[in-house]
Amino acid sequence: MANKLTIYTLDWVPQGPRGFVRDLRLRWAAEEAGFDYDIKTVPFDDRETNHLGSQPFGQVPYLADGDVRIFESGACLLHLARQSETLMPKDTIGAAATQQWVLAALNSIEMVSVPWWFLQMSGQKDNALTGWLDKRLAQLENVLAEREWLAADRFTVADLIMSDVLRVPKLRAHGQRPASEAFIQRVTSRPAFQKAYADQLAHFTAADKERKTRPWS
Amino acid sequence: MANKLTIYTLDWVPQGPRGFVRDLRLRWAAEEAGFDYDIKTVPFDDRETNHLGSQPFGQVPYLADGDVRIFESGACLLHLARQSETLMPKDTIGAAATQQWVLAALNSIEMVSVPWWFLQMSGQKDNALTGWLDKRLAQLENVLAEREWLAADRFTVADLIMSDVLRVPKLRAHGQRPASEAFIQRVTSRPAFQKAYADQLAHFTAADKERKTRPWS
Repeated sequence: MANKLTIYTLDWVPQGPRGFVRDLRLRWAAEEAGFDYDIKTVPFDDRETNHLGSQPFGQVPYLADGDVRIFESGACLLHLARQSETLMPKDTIGAAATQQWVLAALNSIEMVSVPWWFLQMSGQKDNALTGWLDKRLAQLENVLAEREWLAADRFTVADLIMSDVLRVPKLRAHGQRPASEAFIQRVTSRPAFQKAYADQLAHFTAADKERKTRPWS
Repeated sequence: MANKLTIYTLDWVPQGPRGFVRDLRLRWAAEEAGFDYDIKTVPFDDRETNHLGSQPFGQVPYLADGDVRIFESGACLLHLARQSETLMPKDTIGAAATQQWVLAALNSIEMVSVPWWFLQMSGQKDNALTGWLDKRLAQLENVLAEREWLAADRFTVADLIMSDVLRVPKLRAHGQRPASEAFIQRVTSRPAFQKAYADQLAHFTAADKERKTRPWS
């Protein structure tokens, strides 16, 4: 990595999402890979429209790596992973397996778990996505009962993203999946996660001093 | 591409999903890139458990490229795209932009549109995901009103996957998005899509002769 990375996130968020804002995925990957990075911010207020030129869905994070600008946390992770053997093996088979599990985290698990979470938060009595979610989580539990790491028999960025998808508290409290729980603990006990997590909390705590806390809207 | 690819799909499906089974994404990409490929199948009956060793969520497609085995259509597409400049530019900026829009199709649009479709099909009167879906589709419409192609000013695999996500009939019939509609028509008018689509229909039609048609379960 020749360039110092810039990871863009929000200047402040309420308590609820702290520790879960997705810049954490990029901080964590950069820490694992030993990449140097800065954090820059866009304002929380008007966040859905104040950076559409950089992120057309009004979200964070996005990444600058020299002349390269990337949004979508999954795309940022794959971009970083191609520059770090810690994150992804260089051989074709290992790289393909890693990439496949990154996509599985985003398109087979999170595609169900995030809308399920959204319906839970909106207070629906019978969440119509629960059956689908339970099936996917059970299938993943079967995989994780057989192995420590998703790809290439060692830690990769696939474990990073899958554990980040799974560690959402409402999801973790829903049902019993011992292998998945052990996986989350194994992956998030890594020093790079611990540093990224602490740094994100510190970033938002410092921002409290700059503004009055408002209720999450 | 040194190897002849093998794309795995189901041996048969009912009428409803024909033309939308996701092996089409891989057929289409192979046609665009000029890659040689075979189609192999797993049985529709017991499809959720009969190929878990190849696809742990019981889905199709999955891909064999020499010794490399990959599931997740998005991961298969990125694997193929790295071997074809038709699908993805080789330069870092163009590749990053392409990859970012592939991930946006899967994790910003399809993550909302597929669960929304699922709730529509389950007959919910007030679909709790409609507001979120409408916001995402409007944001994408704004992007597509300004450009013909998502990345690198020319067709890439990002257009392939995004148009495949958007062309679902229930989604297309929901609201008015002229730029998105023109995009779908522009991308799916490509000969490679037309051939992949016709081939998938022919594959399932031929299978009708081999078995009695059953209602979609």
